Amino acid sequence: MKLYDAPWAPSPRRVRIFLAEKGVEVPCEAIDLRTGEHLTDAYLRINPRGAVPALKLDDGEVLCESAAICRYFEAIHPEPSLFGRTAIQIGRIESWTRRIEGDGYAAAVYVLRNTGAAFKDRAIPDAGLNVAQIPELAARGAIMWEAFVDALDARLADRAWIAGDDYSFADITALVTIDFARAARLAVPEHLANLRRWHGEASARPSATA
Amino acid sequence: MKLYDAPWAPSPRRVRIFLAEKGVEVPCEAIDLRTGEHLTDAYLRINPRGAVPALKLDDGEVLCESAAICRYFEAIHPEPSLFGRTAIQIGRIESWTRRIEGDGYAAAVYVLRNTGAAFKDRAIPDAGLNVAQIPELAARGAIMWEAFVDALDARLADRAWIAGDDYSFADITALVTIDFARAARLAVPEHLANLRRWHGEASARPSATA
Repeated sequence: MKLYDAPWAPSPRRVRIFLAEKGVEVPCEAIDLRTGEHLTDAYLRINPRGAVPALKLDDGEVLCESAAICRYFEAIHPEPSLFGRTAIQIGRIESWTRRIEGDGYAAAVYVLRNTGAAFKDRAIPDAGLNVAQIPELAARGAIMWEAFVDALDARLADRAWIAGDDYSFADITALVTIDFARAARLAVPEHLANLRRWHGEASARPSATA
Repeated sequence: MKLYDAPWAPSPRRVRIFLAEKGVEVPCEAIDLRTGEHLTDAYLRINPRGAVPALKLDDGEVLCESAAICRYFEAIHPEPSLFGRTAIQIGRIESWTRRIEGDGYAAAVYVLRNTGAAFKDRAIPDAGLNVAQIPELAARGAIMWEAFVDALDARLADRAWIAGDDYSFADITALVTIDFARAARLAVPEHLANLRRWHGEASARPSATA
């Protein structure tokens, strides 16, 4: 198998951190987003959407979407569990993952892809679609971001990690989101002490450098 | 436990179809979205975001997000599996579920929430946030929808169901999305014969009326 990866982008980093937490090594090929390698015919034959990451299996099937790739590896390498073992753990991790994606990650994407020349006419991440930027989405993203970091700070007031006692996929998703959001100039305000404590601890794990 | 439900909305329907496929019955309480019951203090104490569905467990914990509620029930009632058993099934179902949500469901939400008076200043589904509508998002949604139904039609050219031989959470997500999108006047064009065949078969399952 081979993982098509990219050093800067948030979704490939989510998979890399996940694999590092599992202690699993997968052959990687870096796709250079800066030179547009993800939009070349060669890469579009692997993933017609031009998105990274993509996991090419030994039989040629290509699995896209970072959450799907992580769930694939969770099934093959169950330990340590990052999606939960009991029903309530599974539910909490999925609920917070969805919330982090829908509020925080979406906010950062709204800002980043709808402002700046780099994503002109590519405001959604599908190589096949020409979609114009909507600058008003940046303002919406800023409102969403503020609510997101406030909610996450409250959640972390009495918990080590987002879903409870154990580091999980929800934490990986939040770490990737918060670090990625810096590119959109969205930050964690200083007064959100719980979230800053959590960010320090998540960033100190060896997997964070993956 | 109790499931806070709403008859018209797509996310509660996703959970109802899921439970019907499992043959699981859960006590429900209908929240009347037309009269704004989801924005009352009583409901905001259950889910501060004012969203349905929400699952209140016997110990008082409330689980939000339809995908998280479904995964909770999958863990308690594994048969029939709707999220997949093998790693590749799990990966395919998650990958297509994410794609249906991110392309098709998002497109319908973009159209519906950013046009029309019903969602004025409530353009994102969080009761705590006043967010202005952006009419340009409706145009973006229409572009996304067209690409979505084309891709799903191609996927179904040589498969009974979206993730393969078995009906799965991806099919539930697509059925809910396509039926919901009618409210946004987004349809499946007549020439997409594979997708129309699939929609007829998914709609004919007893669970579709749940």
